[in-house]
Amino acid sequence: MGKRGQCRDKESLWDCAHQIGVGIINICGGQGKCHTCKVQVLSGSVSDPTPSELEIFSGQEVEAGWRLACQTYPTSDCILNLPPESITTPQRTQIEGLGAPLLPEPIVLAYPLELKPPSLSDLRADADRVFEGLKEQYQIQCKKMDIDVIRDLPIRLRSLNWRFRVSLRGDEVIALHPLSSPHLGLAIDLGTTKVAGYLLDLDSGKTLAAKAEMNPQISFGEDIVTRITRILKSPDEGLRLQKVIVNSLNQLAEDLCSEVGSKTEEIVDSVVVGNTAMHHILLCLPVEQLVYSPFIPAVKEALNIKARDVGLRIAPGAYVHFLPNIAGFIGADHTAVLLSIKASEAKGIVFVLDIGTNTEVSLIDEGEIYSVSCASGPAFEGGHIRDGMRASSGTIERVRIEQGKIQYQTIDNMLPIGICGSGILDTIAQMYLTGVLDENGRIHNDHPRVRSHQNEIEFVLVSEEESSKRPSIGITQADVRAFQLAKAAIRTGIQVLLETKGLTEEDIDQIVIAGAFGSYIHIESAIAIGMLPSLPLERFLQVGNAAGMGAKLALVSYTKRAEAQNIASRVHYIELATAVNFMNTFVQANYFGNYRIKRGKREEIV
Amino acid sequence: MGKRGQCRDKESLWDCAHQIGVGIINICGGQGKCHTCKVQVLSGSVSDPTPSELEIFSGQEVEAGWRLACQTYPTSDCILNLPPESITTPQRTQIEGLGAPLLPEPIVLAYPLELKPPSLSDLRADADRVFEGLKEQYQIQCKKMDIDVIRDLPIRLRSLNWRFRVSLRGDEVIALHPLSSPHLGLAIDLGTTKVAGYLLDLDSGKTLAAKAEMNPQISFGEDIVTRITRILKSPDEGLRLQKVIVNSLNQLAEDLCSEVGSKTEEIVDSVVVGNTAMHHILLCLPVEQLVYSPFIPAVKEALNIKARDVGLRIAPGAYVHFLPNIAGFIGADHTAVLLSIKASEAKGIVFVLDIGTNTEVSLIDEGEIYSVSCASGPAFEGGHIRDGMRASSGTIERVRIEQGKIQYQTIDNMLPIGICGSGILDTIAQMYLTGVLDENGRIHNDHPRVRSHQNEIEFVLVSEEESSKRPSIGITQADVRAFQLAKAAIRTGIQVLLETKGLTEEDIDQIVIAGAFGSYIHIESAIAIGMLPSLPLERFLQVGNAAGMGAKLALVSYTKRAEAQNIASRVHYIELATAVNFMNTFVQANYFGNYRIKRGKREEIV
Repeated sequence: MGKRGQCRDKESLWDCAHQIGVGIINICGGQGKCHTCKVQVLSGSVSDPTPSELEIFSGQEVEAGWRLACQTYPTSDCILNLPPESITTPQRTQIEGLGAPLLPEPIVLAYPLELKPPSLSDLRADADRVFEGLKEQYQIQCKKMDIDVIRDLPIRLRSLNWRFRVSLRGDEVIALHPLSSPHLGLAIDLGTTKVAGYLLDLDSGKTLAAKAEMNPQISFGEDIVTRITRILKSPDEGLRLQKVIVNSLNQLAEDLCSEVGSKTEEIVDSVVVGNTAMHHILLCLPVEQLVYSPFIPAVKEALNIKARDVGLRIAPGAYVHFLPNIAGFIGADHTAVLLSIKASEAKGIVFVLDIGTNTEVSLIDEGEIYSVSCASGPAFEGGHIRDGMRASSGTIERVRIEQGKIQYQTIDNMLPIGICGSGILDTIAQMYLTGVLDENGRIHNDHPRVRSHQNEIEFVLVSEEESSKRPSIGITQADVRAFQLAKAAIRTGIQVLLETKGLTEEDIDQIVIAGAFGSYIHIESAIAIGMLPSLPLERFLQVGNAAGMGAKLALVSYTKRAEAQNIASRVHYIELATAVNFMNTFVQANYFGNYRIKRGKREEIV
Repeated sequence: MGKRGQCRDKESLWDCAHQIGVGIINICGGQGKCHTCKVQVLSGSVSDPTPSELEIFSGQEVEAGWRLACQTYPTSDCILNLPPESITTPQRTQIEGLGAPLLPEPIVLAYPLELKPPSLSDLRADADRVFEGLKEQYQIQCKKMDIDVIRDLPIRLRSLNWRFRVSLRGDEVIALHPLSSPHLGLAIDLGTTKVAGYLLDLDSGKTLAAKAEMNPQISFGEDIVTRITRILKSPDEGLRLQKVIVNSLNQLAEDLCSEVGSKTEEIVDSVVVGNTAMHHILLCLPVEQLVYSPFIPAVKEALNIKARDVGLRIAPGAYVHFLPNIAGFIGADHTAVLLSIKASEAKGIVFVLDIGTNTEVSLIDEGEIYSVSCASGPAFEGGHIRDGMRASSGTIERVRIEQGKIQYQTIDNMLPIGICGSGILDTIAQMYLTGVLDENGRIHNDHPRVRSHQNEIEFVLVSEEESSKRPSIGITQADVRAFQLAKAAIRTGIQVLLETKGLTEEDIDQIVIAGAFGSYIHIESAIAIGMLPSLPLERFLQVGNAAGMGAKLALVSYTKRAEAQNIASRVHYIELATAVNFMNTFVQANYFGNYRIKRGKREEIV
């Protein structure tokens, strides 16, 4: 969740968490009886397991750090993993994207068949009987059947009494189901932090269920570089990380299916989008060449891989389609974003931003696409910000300073427990607009809410008194610096692309902002601090989880897959660090306020 | 090996085996020190393991019956498995077939490539770099690469310094090797009893190495029906039998490769032929519907399966091609035989016999093919014959009775230890021709070499005196009956096919006999007992292991694969039991002597 806090002497993990505003479920009142407060201690030392813990956890689980929060007392700084089922206030993860209408043209088609059973006068093999049924009843020439389908075929044909539905992918039979089975597809948006899954009906193109979860690899490192460093240290780690993510995808598929009363083996097609690193880790591809200059992916082309070769448990012969990557730091998730906003049909000069730990920025100019990747860091997700945390119940998401008074809004209107990306952005913008911050990003300590606390200068949003004796929430000078670097990275990406094409801010017809953070932010705040160019608000479009939408489009339409391939092949990738004026532009982009940047020089807009 | 015998009190397993003529290696003279006489006790009870046995075998191995033959004493009837490395007289298994010239047209092609390494000004992904290299240097459009090749690609490209050879199968990259690697293919003839492997150079079509081994599934049952019965009793047994055979194929591939100093990962293509049951077991297909009427295979079509999906460890993305089956009891091995003898070009009326436990008989008439399967049983391989055994050093393979005196020849001119198929055929033919047997198959006991022994009438080939006090070797009345059923089954198959086409024996232009047994037999003997029709000897052609040859042809030539597919689709399978006059024909075919059979009636040929 990203929430940090201090705890008092002789407080259990449960008490600590509660103290800093994170609710862990506990029904029995801390007696160790209800077993609902399971947490995993990832690092740090804690008290020995109690008998009631030893009763419910296996030796292996205790070894892996699993404990009951109400029975465990920290004896040093600790990092905990809180599984979703243990938390009372689930994190907000966005799963809905732009609601473009889907025209279903699925690559996997379903054909109902009824066959004559074999007899001594009709000795055709089971597979041949299916092939000939398709030919006679649908004039389809097909001689290929997945080996796992054949392995199940004799028993299945007989148990279904020779009446069934065949799923065909091109000229290959990939599944065989009862006539009444639904025809399902699974789209997955695999992010560094979160994983979103969508279950679709391939015939209608409708989304039947959607669910998002945290990427369980987080316990191996919050950011991708930490995870890759682990893999480079030990080759087994790569397999372990792959297993962790594929297990969670299988669980996600099961959860989605059980929501609509289906089985995962009824999923006959699937699409995965993710950044290049997540793509490589899921496919068990080497990552070393990805993190050392010149940052080369193993593969950029779209891939069709048998689900079993990835470890995904869906229909026996089904494939996973991986949309094409663009470069080492621009993955298939950005291809999906470009697909969902119809990049190939865009008119005028359109910018597309997918804001995250890595922010992808694309400039679309009449079908030509130019892209850069900006290392914007974790600040937008609350990372490296003292009171920052990812969006969930009780985090401050909107802030205004009106006549020196703070007004804020928390998610679900709960008591404030921290501040998430959009709240940080608002606060910093308001600090700048009310003169608490100067254009260099320095906090002036002549404001009543600015104080020095634990050797740091901070702007207090919620004081201890205002939060009924819980820890205060504020923005420190260090927080401002972290956010400043992040916003400068994005603005630099925009400027470098404009200069590459000899354009200026005024030439931009539209800026499309994708991603969870991007869809919650106040555009005015982003303009105020110089993160986005100063343009009329109607030129901005916040589209939500466009990557997930792109994955869904590719899932239900082969035309869209071809379009994605076409888009990816048309992208000119620009390595930010090698661009002209990069350093100057970056330095100028660090300033707060409204300005233009031309050839590395800043002009104030009055 | 199929050798049976009795042992005396207080004889070790090694002594017993030696006594009945089977040499087990033992260098230390029975002290349990050299560990060369390892055997596996499959059933029966034996003495407890000695300390020297407990020293070299793990608990699991002892559990599985592994013992030193010199340290172990039987306490009941036992069945032993003798691993090849423990035997001094290896079995003769035929691996060479008809030496037709091979015109290599491999489906997997190799292209040498040299690529520019990536740089900051050339950021193409590794896979794309390979695809574009193929396009630039060979004008080949290819966008597919096996996932296991991609998984290895970044490391391999860099370690080979961007100079390598790509193996392409159609439009898919399936392997990447050093420029100096050989371009290898593996052909496998997977029989119920033996497994033959051939390592070929795909560029030249030359056989580089060949090796045959016993099918290790023999310890699960000598015949296919016993093995399938085990599988039907417990589903795990199917996986176990699959594992056993695939392990032995992997070992075979390793042995073949190490013979020529190569590695199995240099094998980029492979072909397997086998009977339908072995085909199904190797592919983990259900077998239940195969053994119950109407005996339906899961699949007849040729299959291209990723080697990893079968468990075969060759090049990462390589396929195994399975030639098409013909029916439940006529497998891809017969397709391979028909392919190797060029069935589609045959002139006149040609019969093809592949003699084994199941004998496949095909009639070729101007491109049309009619096939039956005859349950000929194990007699031709020495099974169910008292002194019978499979062909190996010391077995009697040729017999003549000259003026009442027995003349015989053993394999490798060793002292006789038993009698193999061709020897049994010769003996019975000579017994009939010299009047020891009448045309009904009854042994007349007025011959000096006929005696009653242990309540059985037997014809003595080698008496105890003649074999220096070792057990005698002979043919019993029961042996004659077993052989009679086997030869009648084959003759019935021939007659049923002739009648189907309204032909007589005289219309036959050629009878091609394939298989190990078929290539060693005396055709005159087979005619004398009425197993084969009485035709001039020049109309018979013994072609050896034609199934293995067919597998090799399909391995190096895609034209031959298409031809095999074409042949299999043109076969009219006839269920023997449902043929007109089947019972009458079978009764008549039991007689010895030269005769014609027409509409179930026998006419003597004088």
